[in-house]
Amino acid sequence: MIDPALRIGVVGATGAVGRVTLQCLVDRGYTNIRAFASWRSAGGTLGTLEVEEATTQTLGAGDLDVCFFSIGTQLSRDLVPIAQAGGAVCIDKSSAFRLEDGVPLVVPEVNGERALEHTGIIANPNCCTIPLTMVLAPLRDAAGLRNVRVATYQSVSGAGADAIADLRAEDPDDHLLRMDWEFDGVEFDEEAKLRAETRKILELPDLPVSATCVRVPVVVGHAESVWIETQTPLTPPEAERILAQAPGLRLEKVPGHGHAIGSDDVLVGRVRADSAAENGLVLFLVCDNLRKGAALNAIQISELLVGASLPSYFGQTAS
Amino acid sequence: MIDPALRIGVVGATGAVGRVTLQCLVDRGYTNIRAFASWRSAGGTLGTLEVEEATTQTLGAGDLDVCFFSIGTQLSRDLVPIAQAGGAVCIDKSSAFRLEDGVPLVVPEVNGERALEHTGIIANPNCCTIPLTMVLAPLRDAAGLRNVRVATYQSVSGAGADAIADLRAEDPDDHLLRMDWEFDGVEFDEEAKLRAETRKILELPDLPVSATCVRVPVVVGHAESVWIETQTPLTPPEAERILAQAPGLRLEKVPGHGHAIGSDDVLVGRVRADSAAENGLVLFLVCDNLRKGAALNAIQISELLVGASLPSYFGQTAS
Repeated sequence: MIDPALRIGVVGATGAVGRVTLQCLVDRGYTNIRAFASWRSAGGTLGTLEVEEATTQTLGAGDLDVCFFSIGTQLSRDLVPIAQAGGAVCIDKSSAFRLEDGVPLVVPEVNGERALEHTGIIANPNCCTIPLTMVLAPLRDAAGLRNVRVATYQSVSGAGADAIADLRAEDPDDHLLRMDWEFDGVEFDEEAKLRAETRKILELPDLPVSATCVRVPVVVGHAESVWIETQTPLTPPEAERILAQAPGLRLEKVPGHGHAIGSDDVLVGRVRADSAAENGLVLFLVCDNLRKGAALNAIQISELLVGASLPSYFGQTAS
Repeated sequence: MIDPALRIGVVGATGAVGRVTLQCLVDRGYTNIRAFASWRSAGGTLGTLEVEEATTQTLGAGDLDVCFFSIGTQLSRDLVPIAQAGGAVCIDKSSAFRLEDGVPLVVPEVNGERALEHTGIIANPNCCTIPLTMVLAPLRDAAGLRNVRVATYQSVSGAGADAIADLRAEDPDDHLLRMDWEFDGVEFDEEAKLRAETRKILELPDLPVSATCVRVPVVVGHAESVWIETQTPLTPPEAERILAQAPGLRLEKVPGHGHAIGSDDVLVGRVRADSAAENGLVLFLVCDNLRKGAALNAIQISELLVGASLPSYFGQTAS
């Protein structure tokens, strides 16, 4: 359910996620879209859109209903409150606000109702958290979750447009696995995010989530090898039936990375028993990290608001 | 301890592992090396070596002390017994003989003494099994193993020279994760091998080993994210001390893929507690799959035999 006339701003429009956000918005029928970026990109065009500079004036003018931000954590801290003060509902893809009390962290298929509690900012989870929670939520509902272990295979587009350009220019013999996140001596911030966000979204504040994150030399598509222990037993066929019925998931015997690219679905499969645990399951998932892992999820969040409320709902939330 | 005059055959010499085998042998000072391949490659040269056709006559003539095979499972089944009958100790890198009773499956640092029990064939484990068992063995000795979960990141060179050529020719935008192994509806043969071989090498026939194998678009280097539950507790610093002292391992805070390529060591690190288990550890390893994962391990096996026995030891094992 969309309102095509919604006044939408896309901030960080020239980045990897920003471009996909614009494309997804156009594909879904929105017509009233403006593109914002830093002064370096301002004045250029993206398709038929002129790129405007993101400033206090342009974002705070009060003429935007919803604003999507994919500009990195520090810039989001600066610019999101400006657009919020101007009356836009801000859907932020950085980690700036995700764990803040009072800011809903939303995967529509998992905790969409939380979006309605916003006070002007809704956070979009990390690109690995989104597909993981979509798989975990129906299993939580069916059998309870005891713990989760996850190894990620994350594409370079998760690190931005420059990382894509670097990979394209690289000799294949120089391709390496990378762990290009901040390291605190024990784990990467990416791994801590995955745990903290999963706990918040699933509303299981003590759920053990043990993650190892790895960047792989592919352009698009994040995959995860996941081990799940449930409170009560689930056979693999039972788990498959549950996952097949869950919204936004597509069950494949062996989820194909190539099938995930450009798709709105999270592909999940390879569901089998984990011989190492009493109530253990192993599975594999892959999704388009720029779409469901980022741009699409954010757009779906905005559509929850329209679907749940008056056309003027966005305006009501102006601070 | 090497015998430089050892009469060595390398069968499958033009393949990805064969070429590295030749290089490692030359690097280690061996001088009496012959290269064998199929009729398609026979007559060509590899450096200063003429490539001979691998036939009943050439391999069975009785003029080889040790013969390294990296030619695939079916061809190994055909050709290894011929060289064995000719009196060579055959060190085979395929899966043809690995699980056969009476055939030692050897990682020198883990179960080198088993090599001496051979009757003409010694099997070299899978390229993922070798580094995994090197990490698990010292932890088994210190604290016992309850179970193991592993997600692999395997380079295309593990799939052979053609797979390397394909990756080099590929547009980076077409790079994908792949699971290019035989699938029985539950798991890949690669995953079953990793479990069965780990159990045999560690002599823990019931050890639960739950593996998810994934091929990544890198040329060389296999990595593994590993979760280990031990019988008795080990703190991460204790585990690090144990791993740092174990032969063939090099401890790095964050094991670097680039550091592993061309190295004889298995790099291990990122050792931390697994919050999901009472006695749980998480770690990450990476190694050069063509060297320690294949060619080097096989050569080290042959050197165990020379070190442990008379110069004529090889001849004694002719069937």
